[in-house]
Amino acid sequence: MTRYVAPIQDMRFALYDLLGADATMAGLRGGEVINRELIDAVLEEAGRFNEQVLAPLNQSGDAEGCHFDAETATVTSPKGFKQAYAQYVEGGWPGLNAPEAYGGQNLPHTIGVLVKEMIDSANLAWGTYPLLSNGASDALLTHAEEWQREVFLKPLVEGRWTGTMCLTEPQAGSDLGLLKTHAVAGKTEGTWCISGTKIFITAGEHDLAENIVHLVLARLPDAPAGSRGISMFIVPKFKVGRDGAMGERNAVACGSIEHKMGLKGSATCVMNFDGAEGYLIGQPHKGLAAMFTMMNAARLAVGIQGLSLIERALQNSLAYCRERLQMRALSGAVAPDKAADPIIVHPDVRRMLLTQRAFAEGGRALVLYAALQSDIHERSTDDAERARAGEVLGFLIPICKGLLTEISVECTYHAMQTYGGHGYIAEYGIEQFARDARITTIYEGTTQIQALDLLGRKVMQLQGAGLKHLLGDIAAFCQAHAGDEALGEFVGPLAVHAKTWSDLTQDLGKRAQSNPEEIGAAAVDYLFYSGYIVLAWIWARTAAVAGKSALPEAGRTAKLDTARFYFARILPRTHAHLAAMKSGIEGLPEVH
Amino acid sequence: MTRYVAPIQDMRFALYDLLGADATMAGLRGGEVINRELIDAVLEEAGRFNEQVLAPLNQSGDAEGCHFDAETATVTSPKGFKQAYAQYVEGGWPGLNAPEAYGGQNLPHTIGVLVKEMIDSANLAWGTYPLLSNGASDALLTHAEEWQREVFLKPLVEGRWTGTMCLTEPQAGSDLGLLKTHAVAGKTEGTWCISGTKIFITAGEHDLAENIVHLVLARLPDAPAGSRGISMFIVPKFKVGRDGAMGERNAVACGSIEHKMGLKGSATCVMNFDGAEGYLIGQPHKGLAAMFTMMNAARLAVGIQGLSLIERALQNSLAYCRERLQMRALSGAVAPDKAADPIIVHPDVRRMLLTQRAFAEGGRALVLYAALQSDIHERSTDDAERARAGEVLGFLIPICKGLLTEISVECTYHAMQTYGGHGYIAEYGIEQFARDARITTIYEGTTQIQALDLLGRKVMQLQGAGLKHLLGDIAAFCQAHAGDEALGEFVGPLAVHAKTWSDLTQDLGKRAQSNPEEIGAAAVDYLFYSGYIVLAWIWARTAAVAGKSALPEAGRTAKLDTARFYFARILPRTHAHLAAMKSGIEGLPEVH
Repeated sequence: MTRYVAPIQDMRFALYDLLGADATMAGLRGGEVINRELIDAVLEEAGRFNEQVLAPLNQSGDAEGCHFDAETATVTSPKGFKQAYAQYVEGGWPGLNAPEAYGGQNLPHTIGVLVKEMIDSANLAWGTYPLLSNGASDALLTHAEEWQREVFLKPLVEGRWTGTMCLTEPQAGSDLGLLKTHAVAGKTEGTWCISGTKIFITAGEHDLAENIVHLVLARLPDAPAGSRGISMFIVPKFKVGRDGAMGERNAVACGSIEHKMGLKGSATCVMNFDGAEGYLIGQPHKGLAAMFTMMNAARLAVGIQGLSLIERALQNSLAYCRERLQMRALSGAVAPDKAADPIIVHPDVRRMLLTQRAFAEGGRALVLYAALQSDIHERSTDDAERARAGEVLGFLIPICKGLLTEISVECTYHAMQTYGGHGYIAEYGIEQFARDARITTIYEGTTQIQALDLLGRKVMQLQGAGLKHLLGDIAAFCQAHAGDEALGEFVGPLAVHAKTWSDLTQDLGKRAQSNPEEIGAAAVDYLFYSGYIVLAWIWARTAAVAGKSALPEAGRTAKLDTARFYFARILPRTHAHLAAMKSGIEGLPEVH
Repeated sequence: MTRYVAPIQDMRFALYDLLGADATMAGLRGGEVINRELIDAVLEEAGRFNEQVLAPLNQSGDAEGCHFDAETATVTSPKGFKQAYAQYVEGGWPGLNAPEAYGGQNLPHTIGVLVKEMIDSANLAWGTYPLLSNGASDALLTHAEEWQREVFLKPLVEGRWTGTMCLTEPQAGSDLGLLKTHAVAGKTEGTWCISGTKIFITAGEHDLAENIVHLVLARLPDAPAGSRGISMFIVPKFKVGRDGAMGERNAVACGSIEHKMGLKGSATCVMNFDGAEGYLIGQPHKGLAAMFTMMNAARLAVGIQGLSLIERALQNSLAYCRERLQMRALSGAVAPDKAADPIIVHPDVRRMLLTQRAFAEGGRALVLYAALQSDIHERSTDDAERARAGEVLGFLIPICKGLLTEISVECTYHAMQTYGGHGYIAEYGIEQFARDARITTIYEGTTQIQALDLLGRKVMQLQGAGLKHLLGDIAAFCQAHAGDEALGEFVGPLAVHAKTWSDLTQDLGKRAQSNPEEIGAAAVDYLFYSGYIVLAWIWARTAAVAGKSALPEAGRTAKLDTARFYFARILPRTHAHLAAMKSGIEGLPEVH
């Protein structure tokens, strides 16, 4: 069985030493309860639950998968999942970040994302069942009428019900404007009858909760064509009256579940809506906009999925490399008393381990930094600060989602590679991480979609407001440490990269004016490029604070070593991306 | 079902237009029968067999997998595999490259690798059953006594029997010096009793052939410790006398088969030798050296596996991108009569397709070039030419194996990504290629082992003889086209890269003298770096001949476009690898 230990020491480093997040959170609305004692208690309790309850079900859940019974249209989750969910509800975890008015604990996202990282590290497939309850809750909070919140939000926060997001249709994936599911007025005033087929619906049907709240995108009868004619509806599995009473089964049913490369413990459903009763949420035809307000949280959540797999794969890879004996170090035996040296002595094995560590720890700090922006954006009492945080967040979201998921594919690859042939064998459990990781670059918007959001929307349409703030922060950091010789190896290259990043962005803007295809030609490289520089900033900051941190001596050294590794071995990837972007659309001719 | 069409047009381009391989082969010993008519006939016949017989069994073989019956210790291959093997034998394919004296057709490897590419594209898992018959045949040809060749080689060439290579043990993978399997003198003069457990034995047990010839590495009683005490034995599944008569079952049995991430139709066996009767091949204690003489062919074979998956994934990805409608081109509708544009209009989709094409076609040319060196090495009448070809081949083998398998992981990733969510669903068949590809960077020596072979052995120990020839060839090419303006965009950058490559190699040599760990620190980056430059040479050559080739007009344009794409978008990856190598061992500190 693969191991998992909640990385609480590094979480505390990132929260307290690197970001000072506890102080920031304490200064926000509702922050009076926030202190290290509380945070540590949450992390330790979450660590126990995830290590002891969810992690042991990860491999068995993958091997068993979900069961679909066509006759009853029901889905049975893998053994133990239902019991674990009951414990999760009992522990009060579903409402961690929800408002107290609806039964939640109102804790900041910055704490929530760490709990989420643990859940996904422990058991990514299991984590997809509560996952979209959060998205549904957000949508209800922001767009629903008060009675809808009363009726639907409370059971979601409590965890008695779970939520879904029903967007994709066979002909409409990245392009939701093509969707065909439609609604007509229902018999009861204020209800709608929704009909159509949705695919790839995560947790669309399962046995963990007593009801499922589907948020469905569909067209009203008078809807304009395309993405401006989409409305959002609540369609519960069991009908729910305005009084909150659960009634008969609604006309929505699971048609089948997908057989997937990985994430096998998660039920990915075809959902058939056959005149199912639902309620409109928010304004008619504004469903896509409403969906977009949930997007930041949902995309950050998938970025965390990437991070979580990097972390768990690293833990196992590191343990294996310490134990596995094979060959001698090139410069002579390191463990002459053994039959061979542990493979961790080989430089390229170290390269694979350090790559994983650089992205696990750097990625964690990045996610936390983004979550902190989201808390500031929602809870600061200063309007200018709120606006700024929103802009930074908007810029960082596609990077968190796009980069950390792509890197999770890379890092789970490295972890497998360190296992040699054993990495390919299901019994060792490491190949599951690679299969599970592979969906994260696809769902909730592919890397290509994230890249267009970053370069096309966040940079071009919004004049790069978020980027300007980040460049300002990087410049301020470099300025503050200009005289610090010990940091010169980080600050110098970081300043050069920031300048190039800024120039490149200007240049791409000019090119896009003469040909919008230039955006598509550069977008994915721009996402990687930007992500690597943001992580360089994080690693430079890490190097600056590690020595003064609460980490033990070995941990401080490891931070500095990893920062050096990042600058020496990872950051140079920017050169390749930069050259690719400079070649422009001309390098991407038509393909026949 | 996924599609597969043998890419005969591109094979002919690479053979005839790019490499002039038909003329070269015709000039070698036994080459009088070689002409385009013969080659075309072989390719077309192989194309038919692979498209019609093997390709349709690929997805079903993956879904079904192999069956192990513990009671009888037998393995049943997926439905249809046995019948397909019978057709393969009937078609005379097993003996394509074997000497006529043992029933083969004695055709050059350059033709054989194309047939092999087709087999692996059509059905990689099926291809592993005959795969090691070739390795076993090579070993017998080179190292066995005449009676052993008579008895064992002929049935292998005929395809009545198949072969295995039994190297790995639980504690001995990359490091064969640690192996424990041992041999004691048998009751009958000249026989040995072999005992031990081997793991990861491809096609160790199956139902396709009437006997299985295991080539087993084991220790003689007086063997020195480590890799200098290993001998090679023939151990057949059914005992075989010196007269060739098949006798009773030998004391070797399959203990179990592995459950793997992919390649599920291939039986990966634990093989228990329990005093099994065998014959020594070659000299005592020289088994590892004998094994190494087979290594070039075996490693090239795995490189071809990588290539074959790139090709098949590309074919399906391309078809999907032409058909799937999603969003409009950024510069306006391309197919206004349709609900959306085909996704092939989006620049990043083209980037993913062109990446696959650049490596499929460039990789094919690389493999053919290497195979041609191997034919020259074996069959030229000119000793100097033979030696030179052997040196070039030795240098190219770890690149073919290491780079093409790594790139097959990347390219099957791209292919999946172009499918979006459908890429993750087993039904569409594309995710199988990604799972199958993942083993290729591990078995037959991991990428790390290939990299150490390239930089540590082929460059450092052998003074880079192969590299010098290649650099000479590249310089000659650049010289010959120095005045050709149309090729300037390729020749210029290629010359610069070749110079940097040469300088870098010198520099690494110097550094390795002061610290051998520098080799391990640079090796994997050096492998990628060298591979990208070799492929740049191939694409520059392609650009030089495409216009004069037998390709149709669209094919010529595509070659030039792909060459430009390669130089604009792929070759810049060398920048990142170069910077990583320059940072040296210091960037790879100890990991705790």
